[in-house]
Amino acid sequence: MGLYQRWRRLWLPGLHACGLHTAAVPTPPHWLAERLGLFEELWAAQVKRVASMAQKEHRTIKIALPGGHKVDAVAWNTTPYQLAQQISSTLADTAVAAEVNGEPYDLERPLEKDSDLRFLTFDSAEGKAVFWHSSTHVLGSAAEQLLGAVLCRGPSTECGFYHDFFLGKERTVRGSDLPLLEQFCRKLAAAAQPFRRLEASQDQLRQLFKDNPFKLRLIEEKVTGPKATVYGCGMLVDLCQGPHLRHTGQIGALKLLTEQELFFFHELSPGSCFFLPRGTRVYNALVAFIRAEYSRRGFSEVKTPTLFSTKLWELSGHWEHYQEDMFALQPPGSDRPTGSQSDHSTSHPTDTLALKPMNCPAHCLMFAHRPRSWRELPLRLADFGALHRAEVSGSLGGLTRLRRFQQDDAHIFCAPDQLEAEIRGCLDFLRSIYAVLGFSFRLALSTRPSGFLGEPCLWDQAEQVLQQALEEFGEPWDLNPGDGAFYGPKIDVHLHDALGRSHQCGTIQLDFQLPLRFDLQYKGQAGALEHPVLIHRAVLGSVERMLGMLAESCGGKWPLWLSPFQVVVIPVGTEQEGYAREAQRSLQAAGLVCDLDADSGLTLSRRVRRAQLAHYNFQFVVGQKEQSKRTVNIRTRDNRRLGEWDLTEAVQRLLELQNTRVPNAEEIF
Amino acid sequence: MGLYQRWRRLWLPGLHACGLHTAAVPTPPHWLAERLGLFEELWAAQVKRVASMAQKEHRTIKIALPGGHKVDAVAWNTTPYQLAQQISSTLADTAVAAEVNGEPYDLERPLEKDSDLRFLTFDSAEGKAVFWHSSTHVLGSAAEQLLGAVLCRGPSTECGFYHDFFLGKERTVRGSDLPLLEQFCRKLAAAAQPFRRLEASQDQLRQLFKDNPFKLRLIEEKVTGPKATVYGCGMLVDLCQGPHLRHTGQIGALKLLTEQELFFFHELSPGSCFFLPRGTRVYNALVAFIRAEYSRRGFSEVKTPTLFSTKLWELSGHWEHYQEDMFALQPPGSDRPTGSQSDHSTSHPTDTLALKPMNCPAHCLMFAHRPRSWRELPLRLADFGALHRAEVSGSLGGLTRLRRFQQDDAHIFCAPDQLEAEIRGCLDFLRSIYAVLGFSFRLALSTRPSGFLGEPCLWDQAEQVLQQALEEFGEPWDLNPGDGAFYGPKIDVHLHDALGRSHQCGTIQLDFQLPLRFDLQYKGQAGALEHPVLIHRAVLGSVERMLGMLAESCGGKWPLWLSPFQVVVIPVGTEQEGYAREAQRSLQAAGLVCDLDADSGLTLSRRVRRAQLAHYNFQFVVGQKEQSKRTVNIRTRDNRRLGEWDLTEAVQRLLELQNTRVPNAEEIF
Repeated sequence: MGLYQRWRRLWLPGLHACGLHTAAVPTPPHWLAERLGLFEELWAAQVKRVASMAQKEHRTIKIALPGGHKVDAVAWNTTPYQLAQQISSTLADTAVAAEVNGEPYDLERPLEKDSDLRFLTFDSAEGKAVFWHSSTHVLGSAAEQLLGAVLCRGPSTECGFYHDFFLGKERTVRGSDLPLLEQFCRKLAAAAQPFRRLEASQDQLRQLFKDNPFKLRLIEEKVTGPKATVYGCGMLVDLCQGPHLRHTGQIGALKLLTEQELFFFHELSPGSCFFLPRGTRVYNALVAFIRAEYSRRGFSEVKTPTLFSTKLWELSGHWEHYQEDMFALQPPGSDRPTGSQSDHSTSHPTDTLALKPMNCPAHCLMFAHRPRSWRELPLRLADFGALHRAEVSGSLGGLTRLRRFQQDDAHIFCAPDQLEAEIRGCLDFLRSIYAVLGFSFRLALSTRPSGFLGEPCLWDQAEQVLQQALEEFGEPWDLNPGDGAFYGPKIDVHLHDALGRSHQCGTIQLDFQLPLRFDLQYKGQAGALEHPVLIHRAVLGSVERMLGMLAESCGGKWPLWLSPFQVVVIPVGTEQEGYAREAQRSLQAAGLVCDLDADSGLTLSRRVRRAQLAHYNFQFVVGQKEQSKRTVNIRTRDNRRLGEWDLTEAVQRLLELQNTRVPNAEEIF
Repeated sequence: MGLYQRWRRLWLPGLHACGLHTAAVPTPPHWLAERLGLFEELWAAQVKRVASMAQKEHRTIKIALPGGHKVDAVAWNTTPYQLAQQISSTLADTAVAAEVNGEPYDLERPLEKDSDLRFLTFDSAEGKAVFWHSSTHVLGSAAEQLLGAVLCRGPSTECGFYHDFFLGKERTVRGSDLPLLEQFCRKLAAAAQPFRRLEASQDQLRQLFKDNPFKLRLIEEKVTGPKATVYGCGMLVDLCQGPHLRHTGQIGALKLLTEQELFFFHELSPGSCFFLPRGTRVYNALVAFIRAEYSRRGFSEVKTPTLFSTKLWELSGHWEHYQEDMFALQPPGSDRPTGSQSDHSTSHPTDTLALKPMNCPAHCLMFAHRPRSWRELPLRLADFGALHRAEVSGSLGGLTRLRRFQQDDAHIFCAPDQLEAEIRGCLDFLRSIYAVLGFSFRLALSTRPSGFLGEPCLWDQAEQVLQQALEEFGEPWDLNPGDGAFYGPKIDVHLHDALGRSHQCGTIQLDFQLPLRFDLQYKGQAGALEHPVLIHRAVLGSVERMLGMLAESCGGKWPLWLSPFQVVVIPVGTEQEGYAREAQRSLQAAGLVCDLDADSGLTLSRRVRRAQLAHYNFQFVVGQKEQSKRTVNIRTRDNRRLGEWDLTEAVQRLLELQNTRVPNAEEIF
């Protein structure tokens, strides 16, 4: 399995970058060698200092491993890696870093005193972070040496990393740079360069980074103690807290993804994504897909508010359990006097308001807003409303952890005897969507935890119903006893993408509690009032996160129906530009994404190549013949030639392929 | 011109209402007569008391009219209406209420002391409110007498009113009730019943409203002084601050709109609308219409965050000028310590955040997020993002004034020499949309105000460009000299709906300031950096308000493409129910709104009539013959019989008519 990692063109706040794709690749900048020289000097001094400490003290220390086992080590000498080797060669091979007294720690950094030690592997979130984070340095080194980049930030994300850097006013990264960068990264990985941890004084830091204004600013603003850490790795020297892998050989291959201008982030709205036109195109195509399924499956879309009185969240239980993750505010004017007698005006509420983190309470209000009859059930309310959750900003990363996101969220209110059919419907919904998106999946049934709320017999029935539905569904599933929510059992869904990675996205959760909290009732067939059962379900989960997963899975080669690069029209000569524009407008008016490449400074074959590198599903070339016949000459992004097509028929065919959401429109056009 | 007013089914918090459309119309409840008897008794006493006051004092008072003119009056005797008659009979006829010392005042209420007086007519917002508000009482009286309703709230809105009331657990208002209610209202209006203002003690209030739990609760909660006002009007007695029209004869006709379950409001989210499935259907159809035009016209939809640091609003100028109307909050965790050295982690911002009231600053960030070239202009960014503005809750009313709404908002960044073509494009956009929606419109050019910002020569050019574009556009337009915004000239658009009412919705505004504040630049054709011009434009304006206007304009009879009641399938007998369901699913899978009326308790003709009263554009009747031939027998809501159609062909035809957005699908099917 290759390691696929994300990589984005960056922006550096405060500097005016400018990228017109014109400058040539520079030779490595002079300061690289200077900086490395100074680092080596400081490194040699540190090695000597540590060796003398070890020799002077020659002290045995006790290292406690998980499970209580203790081993001896030599202060300032023994490293966690040496201990891992003693334990097992597999552990030594798979460990990516250590944790010493609760703090992340390099495997090659000598231990200093009696300590608790555990090893981190790629299986854990912390281990992954170390892995991705080490990879950013490899890319950073490539960017410095090949592009003369000034490095800015390079955080890891949940399933990859990105690196911001500055290439000067006239330059951004081009698609054609990527193979070169990847090749460089492969070589650096093959060279197994060690990550070397150096402690440097503020003066030394300023000297090391005198050519990087971004790092200098960081040093002024963030380095408060007398020393800070710096890491060396090959030619690279970077200001960084660590820890890292032992050496670059542990990284393997990097896959760099073409920048497609889908979205960006901005410090003035941390944790919220700005979707650019092409990203919005993908986003809307995903939502339209789900909407079409809603129509087929009897779901009703609704729109509910964003801000609610905290009284709602008290009623739903969120205020008690979830308050810290919610954005709350006082409404302006809440300090104004309220009117006295007034039965014909609205009241002046002074309630605290909070941004909704979930849609369910709003849907409960909707269920309750008028009397309901059994004839209306199952009532399936779907909502794409924006949700806000107050993730601490340090934990924000790309599209996987956001403060603002939207879900393909729906709540099904049904009678108990409708439950099984509804669960089967939910499972079928999941399967249809994931099949089109190219994901396989695995299901797990989580049953009642200790401390569950509600009647045991209700739980028995519900768990049986879920189990029955899973059996009939025919896909393999696992049982997670005791792993359900306190309010009801659930089915978790683990997706597997084309690269074999696992993601948790969809969910199907029963809820016996919310209908009670909101006192939801319907008039049953026999006339008595009854409580409905509530099912929370989502297929994509967060639309933003799904978009990010799809972007990574397809590596920029989107299926036609989702593609933000569907067609580019390329006129052979300037005489065909008018017709090319006309063709573009026809495609756009049909709702297809169509660009024009009339750059007369490039030959036709160079423009076709450029379009294929940018992964346009189709290129429509128009020359003199095509113009006179109102046709287009079609090629695919894999350079298959589909020949001459009538323009109108080609548009129709594309619409057909888009609307049927086939994964391989280029093959079956 | 008829007066069209809104009217909604109600809910009464705390009571479990239940409406299964089954109960018969009750006879007027016994407490009506009792309550009226008590009112008459108290009224007689008050008349006597006032007369004796007037006689005892017999004092001349001075009444100051607008403009400084003063007239004499007799304390506790002369009424504002008498003074209006002295001034002019036209004024006496058109005045709807008075304002005495800044307080609203009934025309028939005697003046008590030296006062400032002005008259309110329907032309003013206050006058309209009195008018609509008086109308609620007429409807309330009808509901009490015909339906035995318990009255709750009945506020006026900007262009009408609604009245909430409770009909008992087994009853809601039916479409078939409306003609009866309207007829009653007409009679009450013709009877010109006076609105009589009575001051009552708390004990008297409790006695008057002993049969209305909602009013009793209001009395407990809101009546803080020893007395409060009550109004009588015909059989009605209601707790109310007033003022009102002199008598019901001033109201004319009422038009009651069928409840279509489009949306509702809830006190837990004041000023935000909950769109029910049918309302969401209309909402999404409007958005899809605008999106289709965006595709044709080269606009790019984007998605931007909801929450931004107030630093953004300082930069844009909103924080200085608009702060009081914005929802601001402290992010949770902003009190946590920030990390020290950390160039690989994101920062922990402690900025105050605010919900966006407008999209333009976010679009400026998007323009600025990377270098721009003249080749990219005009860049037209469109956004349906939810906006929040902190209207004081007392001023909230229906869909016309909301705290949360979405706009069909777009910002065009263009070079100065592209301005004229862009303005022409904007005007053409307006005309296309309004034509489909059935609105005529009138344009007005507003030029530089005193205190404008920027270069006079820039203003000259821009005003000329706008004027030129308006001239070429060929529709009549007005000039409003000095009425532009301080940041640029603008074109206001006044819509006229089918009922002749005027609304301000669309706008086209130039902005020279925002590009400077955000230091927006692009690389011009000659290589130098230049500032773009910014155009703010919207066609629908607030989607919510437009939806409300359309609902009122069409009076429940939606054109097919917007309709939340497109088709109902009616099986002749229970044997056809399966096929009817199948037909329903075909229509739904095609994205059409389709319901099923298989109520075997009603005859076929009753169900067809019911569907037509509910304004379903089409009824598909299926009997034995249709089932065997897989056809449907089609009628329109105007009871035109279109005969037998193949089901698949009928679905195709509906899609065609929907996609072309014709206003008269029933006629040209």
